[in-house]
Amino acid sequence: MKDLQNKILVEGTVIGSEILKVDCFLNHQLDIDFLGKVAQEFYERFKDKPIDRILTVEVSGIAIAALVAQHFHVPVVFAKKLQSKTLNEDMFISKVYSFTKRVDYDIRVSKKFLHAGDHILLIDDFLAKGQAVLGLIDICEQAEAVIEGIGIVIEKDFQQGGSLIRAKGYNLVSLARIMNMNEQEIIFWEEEDV
Amino acid sequence: MKDLQNKILVEGTVIGSEILKVDCFLNHQLDIDFLGKVAQEFYERFKDKPIDRILTVEVSGIAIAALVAQHFHVPVVFAKKLQSKTLNEDMFISKVYSFTKRVDYDIRVSKKFLHAGDHILLIDDFLAKGQAVLGLIDICEQAEAVIEGIGIVIEKDFQQGGSLIRAKGYNLVSLARIMNMNEQEIIFWEEEDV
Repeated sequence: MKDLQNKILVEGTVIGSEILKVDCFLNHQLDIDFLGKVAQEFYERFKDKPIDRILTVEVSGIAIAALVAQHFHVPVVFAKKLQSKTLNEDMFISKVYSFTKRVDYDIRVSKKFLHAGDHILLIDDFLAKGQAVLGLIDICEQAEAVIEGIGIVIEKDFQQGGSLIRAKGYNLVSLARIMNMNEQEIIFWEEEDV
Repeated sequence: MKDLQNKILVEGTVIGSEILKVDCFLNHQLDIDFLGKVAQEFYERFKDKPIDRILTVEVSGIAIAALVAQHFHVPVVFAKKLQSKTLNEDMFISKVYSFTKRVDYDIRVSKKFLHAGDHILLIDDFLAKGQAVLGLIDICEQAEAVIEGIGIVIEKDFQQGGSLIRAKGYNLVSLARIMNMNEQEIIFWEEEDV
């Protein structure tokens, strides 16, 4: 999505070779009019699928998932991140490793809100090493829900999460896919390369 | 807002006399079509104000703030909750006490995204003892931003946060205002009582 690439180039900041700060429109301040266009683009990419529910993970996935859900007229469910280890048989739970924070945490979804046979669209803001998305996939598998697609705003391709998920056969759409970056430049995969 | 009262009566669960669970549409699963109506109602209540920015706090305020922001065509900024005590001079920080969890935590907003003279609409899902909203007010005061209004989806009036905030002279609008509740019934303030 060319507009998104331009937005990242103009407003994003690369720190080192792995961190892309886009807190001005995606992570802390939310540019809602722009994210509305991003949501519209996700709708175009997935509108032929029979989506029942959109699944994301707190925090930064919520706003974009809400905007996408408006097009499909379906609910959003956001997985909750918890470091606590208490068992709860009413929840689907998956363990996720955060490479940034170097801790394991649980993501949890109530069994009330995800059912066998549900057709799910997964939405998240970032895909790096893929741990959060793999956790959401695990939760869908536990629920025997059907993943119809995975929509990511920004994929850092060089961190390999996308390869892992594509290798499993999922329909993964990243609206901006960064091949490489450093403090001088950001190189995107173009659609025709993908 | 009558539709919201009905939604709470049909889908909410009261535990004891203080906890109202509405995770089926507001806190875990998000009923986006319904929340779109809630956002429309906030717009009607505040559309005469010159809003530049909507401020909320993670997690549950984000989706509703995003839907309201679509009407005003302004950005959302969500304050981040952190238990860490690291100082950061680039952030406005306010200490908030959680009665539920019995801990202090910090809420933080980057100084990049809140400026002197900004006209702010505060949005949150719940108002109980008012600590989170008081923290957001404190952050706006630090920034010398102007609070044009405060929009709350569900106020638990009997927990006194609303009284505190109204006593300070703020224009506080709660779309459902619960006077009292227990496991048998929920009593709302009606608009004409307010």
